[in-house]
Amino acid sequence: MSQAIEKKVIGYVKKAQNASKQMVLVSMSVKNAVLKKMARALLANKAYLLRENKKDLKAAASQNYPSALVDRLVLNDKRIAGMSECLLDTAKIKDPVGTVIKKFKNADDLNIEKVRTPIGVVGIIYESRPNVTSDCIGLCLKSGNAVVLKGGKEAIYSNKAIFKICQDVLKKSKIPVDAIQLIDSTDRAATSTLLKQDNYVDVIVPRGGEGLINYVVGHSRIPVIKHAAGICHTYVSNKADLKKAKDICINAKIQRPGVCNAMETLLVHKAVAKKFLPSVCDVLIDAGVELRGDQKTRAIIKGVKPAKASDWDTEYLDMILSIKVVENTNEAIAHINDHGSAHSDAIVTKDKKEGDLFLSAVHSACVYVNASTRFTDGYAFGFGAEVGISTDKLHARGPMALEELTTYKYAVRGVGQIRK
Amino acid sequence: MSQAIEKKVIGYVKKAQNASKQMVLVSMSVKNAVLKKMARALLANKAYLLRENKKDLKAAASQNYPSALVDRLVLNDKRIAGMSECLLDTAKIKDPVGTVIKKFKNADDLNIEKVRTPIGVVGIIYESRPNVTSDCIGLCLKSGNAVVLKGGKEAIYSNKAIFKICQDVLKKSKIPVDAIQLIDSTDRAATSTLLKQDNYVDVIVPRGGEGLINYVVGHSRIPVIKHAAGICHTYVSNKADLKKAKDICINAKIQRPGVCNAMETLLVHKAVAKKFLPSVCDVLIDAGVELRGDQKTRAIIKGVKPAKASDWDTEYLDMILSIKVVENTNEAIAHINDHGSAHSDAIVTKDKKEGDLFLSAVHSACVYVNASTRFTDGYAFGFGAEVGISTDKLHARGPMALEELTTYKYAVRGVGQIRK
Repeated sequence: MSQAIEKKVIGYVKKAQNASKQMVLVSMSVKNAVLKKMARALLANKAYLLRENKKDLKAAASQNYPSALVDRLVLNDKRIAGMSECLLDTAKIKDPVGTVIKKFKNADDLNIEKVRTPIGVVGIIYESRPNVTSDCIGLCLKSGNAVVLKGGKEAIYSNKAIFKICQDVLKKSKIPVDAIQLIDSTDRAATSTLLKQDNYVDVIVPRGGEGLINYVVGHSRIPVIKHAAGICHTYVSNKADLKKAKDICINAKIQRPGVCNAMETLLVHKAVAKKFLPSVCDVLIDAGVELRGDQKTRAIIKGVKPAKASDWDTEYLDMILSIKVVENTNEAIAHINDHGSAHSDAIVTKDKKEGDLFLSAVHSACVYVNASTRFTDGYAFGFGAEVGISTDKLHARGPMALEELTTYKYAVRGVGQIRK
Repeated sequence: MSQAIEKKVIGYVKKAQNASKQMVLVSMSVKNAVLKKMARALLANKAYLLRENKKDLKAAASQNYPSALVDRLVLNDKRIAGMSECLLDTAKIKDPVGTVIKKFKNADDLNIEKVRTPIGVVGIIYESRPNVTSDCIGLCLKSGNAVVLKGGKEAIYSNKAIFKICQDVLKKSKIPVDAIQLIDSTDRAATSTLLKQDNYVDVIVPRGGEGLINYVVGHSRIPVIKHAAGICHTYVSNKADLKKAKDICINAKIQRPGVCNAMETLLVHKAVAKKFLPSVCDVLIDAGVELRGDQKTRAIIKGVKPAKASDWDTEYLDMILSIKVVENTNEAIAHINDHGSAHSDAIVTKDKKEGDLFLSAVHSACVYVNASTRFTDGYAFGFGAEVGISTDKLHARGPMALEELTTYKYAVRGVGQIRK
């Protein structure tokens, strides 16, 4: 059984690598036309998609999955339209392949160009959201890569249906059909085999919870770009515009609490805590947010639960917020660097110098002055669709979109130069 | 024993991470002054360095190491001067930290800057060359990183001496002394412990032979940037200037055969093979190069050994060359993409279109038209000193110098924007 899975997975990645070698030669107009056809095909096959999705939902119901997971699993008219739009958006974005990043002459008069090229074969390992299947097919093809997809077992019927629709489009196109591969085995052995194929797969992008990320990091021979937790902070300085601070905090916490760029911890300067906390906490409590605070917070706001040490290191992804009153900006920065996940953190302040200090001293992928951390994503940054938000430091940090799906080569033109 | 080593290594990486947090705040002038002092200190302590190096050489003699390894191990006046100069060169290069890579506004009018920042803690695992110790200390400090060094056991006395000299300079400086760490244990357990410290170390750069690289890739939880083999090709087209082709091939093979950017395989178009091969092979044979060829080559040049299938996949790092006569440019490109290591490959041609095709179709880090592959290094590219030549595709490809020792963050300035 396990050996059969191994053979199958190795077959997939070999095909993907062969296809990736031809992908470099596919023109931008062909790629865009294919993405648009896929977008239309998803809408045209809505009934089929909903039917297959129901099988996943039925299985989920019998498994007693948490409701947040089941919610991510659901396909409906709006979500299918969203998947279709994502492909259309990706078709519209400029292809980064071929872009000259820089151009220079060396001391020997060689003309050196640093040029963007596709990475090759991208492996994506993800959990319950079926839209990742079509989003990543679009992004990887557009950037000239082949893609090997391994979705969660809870979404297997939905993923297979989306994949089949995209594959049928490829069959009638000039893009090699093998450029997209879906590992349809739900066995762990499939993942562990995939992670060993460093001769065929160039990068693995795991999107998901701690367990998945941890497993991938511990077992992969292939370079990994993690898409892990967001423990995001907002720090309200004593120099903040408190009206703006309130809007920003409420937005960062409750506009969409289940995503990685939502605020999990609020830090407030002690000089404004008594004025600021009551007004913002009223709104949060009314919205149903559970507050957990340090002693100083609890002295100001009645009914706040005591925060445990572990609260400062927790990604709730839920209607829960931890609150701490700090002595000064340095304490806020130190708290963020110690307890955050280097994802997205914000300061609210009218003092430019303080804002600049925060921007340089906080070691996170995205650091904000006077804005909600919710802006950390490829779409909001203007990059179009995204593979996700990288929480790693190498190659791709923060929103990972088309440009981050490329690498580069040096193209060197000489007139016979030799090394002295 | 093993537990004591584990504790020690964890102590080193924790200290390095703490120091790295302070490194961001060290000014460029302080960093440059420290590098210059280290350069002077290496020269001033030459006698001490030579004495310690002798201990390594004595141990090597008793171990029957291969002569190439022993050669790499030797310190002498010239090499110590070279190490000193490398630090001075690194002091001269512009610090990439703080550079704005790009600057843009998003649809919500947020001002977004993509800014270079240090990576954090860089782990370097290397083999016998002691100069790597001071080269990497210079590069990592200059780019605002802390560095954890793990050299080969065959160079332990030399590495400890170089490290001590650099550490003594740091003790009298404003750079935290913990920013450089040398793992002085020669036990494998030290390396395996280091590779598990993904909470403290941000990247591992292994420089060395296949065994080392393979071990690191198989055991690291930390992102790895490999510095592995170079199976480099030169292809002489039927449209080549054969005089230039001869100079380029001789340079690529014999100017320094033991390095990763030296030519290992020569490909020649069948239409020029009879004219080209005799003249170039004369020089190579006179220089002592052993030739291994396919049947067509052996029909032209007497005394060429038959190349085995494995020859096309071998990095000789020695005075050996494999030669193959090809039907056309496409066969040459396919051979390079199949058998090369995507390091450095060259075409010699007068035809611009053919050159451009080669540049785009060969999937290597550095692709050359009419120049020797020997130019692939940080110094020759004008990047100053280098950590090495990355054979990976992510983050750093080809020469890995100061810029590649940085990552980036997004610094976002708003006026109270929230996500709709």
